[in-house]
Amino acid sequence: MTNRKYLPILLSFFLSYPAFSQTPKVNPDRLHESLMKLSTFGKNAAGGSDRVAYSSYDLHAREYVQGLMKEAGLDVSIDFAGNIIGRKAGKNPNLKPIAFGSHIDEVPNGGDYDGPVGSMGAIEVVRTFSENNITTDHPLEVIIFANEEGGVVGSRALAGALSEDALQVVSNSGVTQYDGIKLLGGNPERIPELKRNPGDLAAYLELHIEQGGILDAEKLDIGVVEGIVAIEWWEFTFAGKANHAGTTPMNKRNDPMLPAAQFVLAVNEIVNSYEGRQVGTVGKIQAFPGAGNVIPGEVKVNVELRDLSSEKIWKIYADIEARGKQLALESQTELAIKHIEVASKPALADPEIRKVIQAQAEKLGYGTKSLPSGAGHDAQEMARIAPMGMIFIPSKDGISHAPAEYSSKADIANGANVLLHTILELDKLLK
Amino acid sequence: MTNRKYLPILLSFFLSYPAFSQTPKVNPDRLHESLMKLSTFGKNAAGGSDRVAYSSYDLHAREYVQGLMKEAGLDVSIDFAGNIIGRKAGKNPNLKPIAFGSHIDEVPNGGDYDGPVGSMGAIEVVRTFSENNITTDHPLEVIIFANEEGGVVGSRALAGALSEDALQVVSNSGVTQYDGIKLLGGNPERIPELKRNPGDLAAYLELHIEQGGILDAEKLDIGVVEGIVAIEWWEFTFAGKANHAGTTPMNKRNDPMLPAAQFVLAVNEIVNSYEGRQVGTVGKIQAFPGAGNVIPGEVKVNVELRDLSSEKIWKIYADIEARGKQLALESQTELAIKHIEVASKPALADPEIRKVIQAQAEKLGYGTKSLPSGAGHDAQEMARIAPMGMIFIPSKDGISHAPAEYSSKADIANGANVLLHTILELDKLLK
Repeated sequence: MTNRKYLPILLSFFLSYPAFSQTPKVNPDRLHESLMKLSTFGKNAAGGSDRVAYSSYDLHAREYVQGLMKEAGLDVSIDFAGNIIGRKAGKNPNLKPIAFGSHIDEVPNGGDYDGPVGSMGAIEVVRTFSENNITTDHPLEVIIFANEEGGVVGSRALAGALSEDALQVVSNSGVTQYDGIKLLGGNPERIPELKRNPGDLAAYLELHIEQGGILDAEKLDIGVVEGIVAIEWWEFTFAGKANHAGTTPMNKRNDPMLPAAQFVLAVNEIVNSYEGRQVGTVGKIQAFPGAGNVIPGEVKVNVELRDLSSEKIWKIYADIEARGKQLALESQTELAIKHIEVASKPALADPEIRKVIQAQAEKLGYGTKSLPSGAGHDAQEMARIAPMGMIFIPSKDGISHAPAEYSSKADIANGANVLLHTILELDKLLK
Repeated sequence: MTNRKYLPILLSFFLSYPAFSQTPKVNPDRLHESLMKLSTFGKNAAGGSDRVAYSSYDLHAREYVQGLMKEAGLDVSIDFAGNIIGRKAGKNPNLKPIAFGSHIDEVPNGGDYDGPVGSMGAIEVVRTFSENNITTDHPLEVIIFANEEGGVVGSRALAGALSEDALQVVSNSGVTQYDGIKLLGGNPERIPELKRNPGDLAAYLELHIEQGGILDAEKLDIGVVEGIVAIEWWEFTFAGKANHAGTTPMNKRNDPMLPAAQFVLAVNEIVNSYEGRQVGTVGKIQAFPGAGNVIPGEVKVNVELRDLSSEKIWKIYADIEARGKQLALESQTELAIKHIEVASKPALADPEIRKVIQAQAEKLGYGTKSLPSGAGHDAQEMARIAPMGMIFIPSKDGISHAPAEYSSKADIANGANVLLHTILELDKLLK
C-alpha cells in the first residue's frame, strides 16, 4: 500500500503537469490578486470605486490591464472606440475569432466586481492557456470594452449601433463620449469603420457577477444566462382637480392620489399574477403641485416591466393599461399614458452556447441554474453581431453598483474555469 | 283702492329715506365699484392679481383704500406693523371698539375677492352708517391688515404673536417682513408696543369669501363660521431595501412603495370613517432614489389633517398611525413618523356672535349654513385677543388663490349687509 500521506502531493504534481492535465484550471490566487490590484485604481474613502470611464483612474487602470494582457501573450491594441483588444492567433487562421471579455469602468461609488470579474477572468483564461501550452484552433480575442456603465459605448460601437448624438452625451467623468474616447486613445471620427458584422466573430462570451441575489440565496455556483431582458417604461398620469386641502370637503374632492395608489398596487398584483420571471416596478411617483396642503391635480406613476420576451411584456402591459383605465373611470380622473423609449430589446443567449456552458459547469462539479439577466451588459450589444453566451457567478446579497458588491475568490475562479472550458469546447464544436 | 302700480315706488321712497328705514342696507353698486377699482392695482395679463404685500401695487392700493376710508368718515392711521386702522368714535367713549376688516394683499397671480370683499365691505358698512346718520354706542375700528397672505403678519402683530425671527422671512415681493413693514409706513422695531390684550376690543368681525364650494353648491347666501380649523402635518417614511429593478425577483423584494400605496388609501378611508367635517389629505408622496429602474429604498408620504377640534384630529391620527404601523409590519418595512410643526391651533368663533350673525342673516332673508373655515384668516389671530365672528359668502366653484376666483355683486352686498346688522346688534348687546 502506498502511504496515503503522499497521495495528494503526487496527485497534485501529476495534475499540474500540463501535458497530463485533463482539466486545466485557472490560478485562483493570481486571478484574485489581479482583481485586488485593479480595485486600487479609484478606490474612495467609502470603500467604493470611483473608476468611472475616462477618469484618470480609468486611464491608469487601463495601462495596468494592457500590461497584464501583454504578459499573458496577447497582442494588444486600442480600437477607434477606445476598446482594448488583445489578440492571440489560433492554429487555423481561416476560423473566426472567439471573443470574450467585459469592462473595467464603474458607476460612481461603485464596486470592485461588476466588470472586473469578467475582464480579469478573461485575461486569466489566456494566461492559463499559455502556461498549459494550449493553442486553440480559433483565434482568440479578449475585449475590455470602453465605458460600459455610461451607455455600453464600446460594445455598441462594435455592433455598429452607436449614434453620433450619443457621442455628444456627457459621461460620468464630465467629458463627452467623443472627448472621452479620445482620452482612451480611440478616434471617435472613425468609429463607423470598426463595425463588426454577423459572422465576423465565432462567438462572444462574458463572465459577470449576477447583480441579483438568486445564486447567492440558492447557494449555487454558476448561472447559465438565458438572455438579457427587454425593458419597457411607461408614465401613467392620473389627473383630477387640484384644490385647497382645507376648504374642500372629502365628498367634493377629485383627488388623483387615490387611483394612483390603487394603480401602484395593481401593477404589483398583475405582474405577480403571471408565471415566470418577469419583473415590474414602480420606482417613481410624484404628485403635482406636491404640497402637503394642496389636493394634487396630477399624480404621475412610472411603470417598468422587464422580461426575456417582449411579447410577454406587452401582454402584461395590456392588463396594466386596462386596470389603469378602469381605476380612472371609477375615480372620475383623466388618465394619460406615455410610453418612454428606453431602447432596450431582449438579447437571447445562443442555445448551443448555453448548452455548452451548462455541460462544462456540470463537468467541473458546479451547481448551476439557468436564469435571465435583469441588468444590461456589453453582451447585449454583442448579441447583435455574434452568437452570445454569458456566465454568472454569485454576488453576495445581490448587491451591485455599491461599495458592498462582493463575490468570493472561489466563486470568481469557478466562473473563470467555466469560461475557460466553454472556450475549449466551442473551439472544438465551431468549425 | 290705491293704484297698485305706484305702490312699489312709494314703498321704495319710504324705505330709502334714512330716518324711516328699519333695515339700512349697503349700496351694492358702490361696494362693487370700489372692489373693481381695487382690482386694477396689480392686475396681470392672465387676469390675476399680483398685488402681493409690500409690492408697489400694494402700496398704491393702500393709498386708494385710505382715501375711501377718509371719505367714509374714518380717522385713518398706520400702526407699527403697517396695518391701516380707521377709527370712528362711538356715543359711549367708555366702551371698547368693535373691530372689523380684512386684507387687500394677494398671493402671486391670485384673485380679486379673497380679502378685498371683507375690506371693501367693512368700509361700505361705515359709509352706510354715515349716510344713514347712524352712530353706534361702541367706537368702531376698521382694520386693513398688513400681509395676510405672507404669514398673517399684521394680525399676528396685533395679537402679540409675531416673532422677531418671522420679521426676517423674505415675503413674496422679495423683501423681508422687516423691510416690507417699513415700506408700508410701519416701524418693525416698535411692533411689541402695539399688542392688544384680551378685553381691549369688544369684538372682531370679518367678512370673507368661503374659499370652498359648499355655499355655491348648495345655493346658500351666507356661511356662519364655526371657527377656523386646526392643522396638523405628519411625514410617514416607509423604508425597505433599494435594489436593482431588473435583477431582483418579485419575491425577493422589500419594496416600500407597496405599504406606502396602501397607506395612502388607508388615510382616506380612516378620515371618511368619522362623522363630521374633518378633512385629511395626502398631497405629497416621494420615492427615493426615485428612478424608474430602481426599487425604492424609501417612500415618504405627507399626511395633513384639519378639524375644528384638535382632540378629534389626534383621535383620527391615532387610527392612521396604528394602520401605518400594521402595514409596515405586514410588509416588513421600517416606519418612521415625524410630526411637522405648522403652528396652527383651532380658533373657535364666539358662540354669541355666531348666534347674532345667524339671526341677522335670517332676518335679512338669506339662506345660511354653519360651517368651519378650512383656510386660515386674520380672524384666527384676532381670536386670541377678542371674541371673533366670521361671515362667509359663496365663492364660485370654491376656487380661490387663482384668477378665476369670483363672487357675485349680490352675494358681496348680502355679506356686507350681514356684517352691518351684526355690528348694530352687537352694539346693542355688548355693554
